[in-house]
Amino acid sequence: MLFLTIDILGTAVFAISGFLGAFDKRLDFFGGSIIALVTAIGGGSIRDVLLGVTPVGWLSNRPILYAIFGGIFIALLFRKHLLKLRKTMMLFDTLGISLFTVLGTQVSLSMDIAPVSAVLLGTSSAVAGGVIRDTLCNEIPLVFKGNLFYATPCILGGFLYWILLKTPVNTEWSAIIAMSFIFTIRILAVRFKWKIPELV
Amino acid sequence: MLFLTIDILGTAVFAISGFLGAFDKRLDFFGGSIIALVTAIGGGSIRDVLLGVTPVGWLSNRPILYAIFGGIFIALLFRKHLLKLRKTMMLFDTLGISLFTVLGTQVSLSMDIAPVSAVLLGTSSAVAGGVIRDTLCNEIPLVFKGNLFYATPCILGGFLYWILLKTPVNTEWSAIIAMSFIFTIRILAVRFKWKIPELV
Amino acid sequence: MLFLTIDILGTAVFAISGFLGAFDKRLDFFGGSIIALVTAIGGGSIRDVLLGVTPVGWLSNRPILYAIFGGIFIALLFRKHLLKLRKTMMLFDTLGISLFTVLGTQVSLSMDIAPVSAVLLGTSSAVAGGVIRDTLCNEIPLVFKGNLFYATPCILGGFLYWILLKTPVNTEWSAIIAMSFIFTIRILAVRFKWKIPELV
Repeated sequence: MLFLTIDILGTAVFAISGFLGAFDKRLDFFGGSIIALVTAIGGGSIRDVLLGVTPVGWLSNRPILYAIFGGIFIALLFRKHLLKLRKTMMLFDTLGISLFTVLGTQVSLSMDIAPVSAVLLGTSSAVAGGVIRDTLCNEIPLVFKGNLFYATPCILGGFLYWILLKTPVNTEWSAIIAMSFIFTIRILAVRFKWKIPELV
Repeated sequence: MLFLTIDILGTAVFAISGFLGAFDKRLDFFGGSIIALVTAIGGGSIRDVLLGVTPVGWLSNRPILYAIFGGIFIALLFRKHLLKLRKTMMLFDTLGISLFTVLGTQVSLSMDIAPVSAVLLGTSSAVAGGVIRDTLCNEIPLVFKGNLFYATPCILGGFLYWILLKTPVNTEWSAIIAMSFIFTIRILAVRFKWKIPELV
Repeated sequence: MLFLTIDILGTAVFAISGFLGAFDKRLDFFGGSIIALVTAIGGGSIRDVLLGVTPVGWLSNRPILYAIFGGIFIALLFRKHLLKLRKTMMLFDTLGISLFTVLGTQVSLSMDIAPVSAVLLGTSSAVAGGVIRDTLCNEIPLVFKGNLFYATPCILGGFLYWILLKTPVNTEWSAIIAMSFIFTIRILAVRFKWKIPELV
């Protein structure tokens, strides 16, 4: 129930961020909606397609579809107010990437692949949507250059989850611990402006 | 037979538009051919991959492969004349997106997914090739910002098709009506310069 | 054994080229690593996904995963020296595309698709990773406009391989001949600065 709520809120926030990104680029309503859609479902789609889990999950997941259309609707109506709510949106976005990473890693670990690949696919579930959003908007993906400490907590949290599963900790608690870890690191990184060193 | 002809003409026109887009960017012959190929098969490939219909259709569809190579050949030989034939090309392109949307929606509805997803995949069959073309050419996809009323008729036509299938109208006539609808709306939109409001 | 060595060296060089491309764009360490990863596995992933060979190969291929992480590590430590080793890197890259094309064509021919599609997927195995790298770095893909005679030898070599398989030459020798052909053409093209005519 908690997971489902975070899933829906996270997806809606991803859709909103896609729509607002399109708005910055002066796209029309259709362009905004499509970018909202691919931002919300891009990461999970890539994971499912690479794993061969098809039809990919969102195609038949009505709550997720409603969350996306709701996100587009909210972004369309309230886009000027949303800019003032950056902190709230960042919070839901962080909840979203924490959950998506752990769920993505979980799904991937259940297939016959290397654990490191499962962590990579888990991280991709969380961040690839944003990468597609930025590429379609003709930008170098923010996550690659913003020094935002955005994907690194996901990778670390994915590995933490994998390690916890090898301990007596049960699956649910492993997920909760790994998600809290990702959430905390990301919030601390934003709060204290941690940076990944730029390549020189 | 009519559907097959439209399929082939539409695919060839997609390939031509990809090649001409590459020409504008001063790419070489190989670059032009690859962009022609992905423009022609990109949308259907994304649909098939997300649905898990693999190997994706065009890989073993010889008429479609010939249509693509024919389109590249025509674009190479006649690229200066083709620029004067924009109206004819627009006509075939519109026939193409009408057919691709309805066929794409049909294939998707036959899988166990939400109807709205089927319409989205149908539309994607028609427009995603052009999105990939523009992204590879380092442009924001035209369909997102050109106010061209290009994808919206596809979405509406996809929904119309889905509704018609629930009526006593048979599958073939449902397809013909939905295609004619998409075709008419798109032609009217071009003729009377309909615009989707830009986001402000 | 020879093939495996080339596979690993080629993959590592692809990862290095992705990391160095990201370095040129002043991305951070994470961005560089992701671009290294997609450069190394992008082509093979697209082939596998279009064919429906899932989970895609690299996810459970430990030597390849080590080659990628090794490539990232080498690129990080020695990136200034690597710029002086362009010739050596070009050699491994050329070995890599020769092998990837032939192996990709081989895998594809074993599926029920048109031979020309198999050659296209084989070429895509070799060059699509670089295309994704350049697109993520917000550049028009080098292979489309650099006049580099990069993909053309792959296409020709893929067809040569397909033809050889129809002769009494056995599979292994067919692969070796086709790879040598791709390697030689590419090296000659670089040595004598062959160009594909730009479209005018």
